[in-house]
Amino acid sequence: MIPRLYIDGPLHSGLPAPLSAEQAHYLKNVLRRAEGDELRLFNGKDGEFAAKIVELKKKMGAAQVGERTREQEAEPDLTLCFAPVKRGPLEVIVQKAVEVGAARLQPVITERTVAPKLNIERLQAIATEAAEQCGRLTITSVGEPIRFAKLLDEWPQGRRLLFCDEAGDDENEEWGGREGRALPVLEALKSANSNSEGWAVLTGPEGGFSVKERSELRAKPFVTAATLGPRILRADTAAIAALVLWQAALGDWRKS
Amino acid sequence: MIPRLYIDGPLHSGLPAPLSAEQAHYLKNVLRRAEGDELRLFNGKDGEFAAKIVELKKKMGAAQVGERTREQEAEPDLTLCFAPVKRGPLEVIVQKAVEVGAARLQPVITERTVAPKLNIERLQAIATEAAEQCGRLTITSVGEPIRFAKLLDEWPQGRRLLFCDEAGDDENEEWGGREGRALPVLEALKSANSNSEGWAVLTGPEGGFSVKERSELRAKPFVTAATLGPRILRADTAAIAALVLWQAALGDWRKS
Repeated sequence: MIPRLYIDGPLHSGLPAPLSAEQAHYLKNVLRRAEGDELRLFNGKDGEFAAKIVELKKKMGAAQVGERTREQEAEPDLTLCFAPVKRGPLEVIVQKAVEVGAARLQPVITERTVAPKLNIERLQAIATEAAEQCGRLTITSVGEPIRFAKLLDEWPQGRRLLFCDEAGDDENEEWGGREGRALPVLEALKSANSNSEGWAVLTGPEGGFSVKERSELRAKPFVTAATLGPRILRADTAAIAALVLWQAALGDWRKS
Repeated sequence: MIPRLYIDGPLHSGLPAPLSAEQAHYLKNVLRRAEGDELRLFNGKDGEFAAKIVELKKKMGAAQVGERTREQEAEPDLTLCFAPVKRGPLEVIVQKAVEVGAARLQPVITERTVAPKLNIERLQAIATEAAEQCGRLTITSVGEPIRFAKLLDEWPQGRRLLFCDEAGDDENEEWGGREGRALPVLEALKSANSNSEGWAVLTGPEGGFSVKERSELRAKPFVTAATLGPRILRADTAAIAALVLWQAALGDWRKS
């Protein structure tokens, strides 16, 4: 297996690329690689390149960049907005969201969010490692947490939001003046297949969204509400499931 | 939150039900419950019942069974056949497969399976706990591992198998005489929507299936081959994704 690394800088065939202290450590001490060994490098914009380790010290290293092995490709514009949860499932969300193909991760603080202070740097490191291992040509960025109200207030024009309404649908509730039930997720995605400029998926904390939050979401014209089956999903399961279904219905899982 | 427990025995309104030593410990010491507190009980065949704790000792307990709160319902006949992986992702597979709604988990030893000896009892305990927490009315059973060849030889008449071909499709390979590429997963599920008596999903180990295994699978008339997007999924991500997509396309996630 040839190690695949993300380089935060330019990559050009025939020129050297510096390896960070962490990358040098990882190659030397974890993967037991040495000078002369092969790499694959990508930087999120120029595709993927073959490379060779030409220097491997304790706190730095360098690679010689060879031929381009893959061209950069357009990727689905899909953001995961999620209420942070405790560390184990949080890290599962980050790792799996990257593999499934989310472009951005946006932590959202909802009413019922109970989570320790987020270490965004650590989550970004998990996201970068997952991108290196799953063969992506880009890095999924992890944003600073924002409040639920601010998320809705500053929603970008043209972007649709798949709201995964885990609490299901109560026919007696009024949904901020809008009619209609939350649809089964594939039906919801099919019916919302509009000229949207990108999509996002929103999943809640372990306790779900409050009635007020659900009502506010349902009242927004950019929101498509969907149910994720009859069982109660954990927060991490719901996030992965929603991303997978979006990719299969509207994203790059439609290609074989 | 009212604790929900699986009882391996009969449940009748008005009669007592014994609680196991583990259940008594869990209620008393983990959840801090006492005599008089409410429960929900299910046994996989008679629906769900309200109940009250009437006795809670160190090594045993009992509940008085009250009214039936939910009728037993038919559930999708979906088996997850999966190559065991190391402990962390293995437990993620078991927990998530139960939530997503798999009826049975069948570990399969493939050529490239690298996994420690499986503790089936522990995996069954994780499956039972997940069923209790996600609101299922049944328990997902965890089978003893079987070899890949035996799985195919003894395949039940009428059951279809969704083979998630992570290695993708190589147009130059011969697939045991069968033509055609692996389809994107939703397309594959739609095209295979036959009069099958139940379904199974098969996902591989971290190293994927061997060329021989893939070729054998493609040659079976009960197999539908599908791709899960352009990135390399970890074994646990692939298993969750395949189950989610099956449920949304052909299972009980079609209901709202």
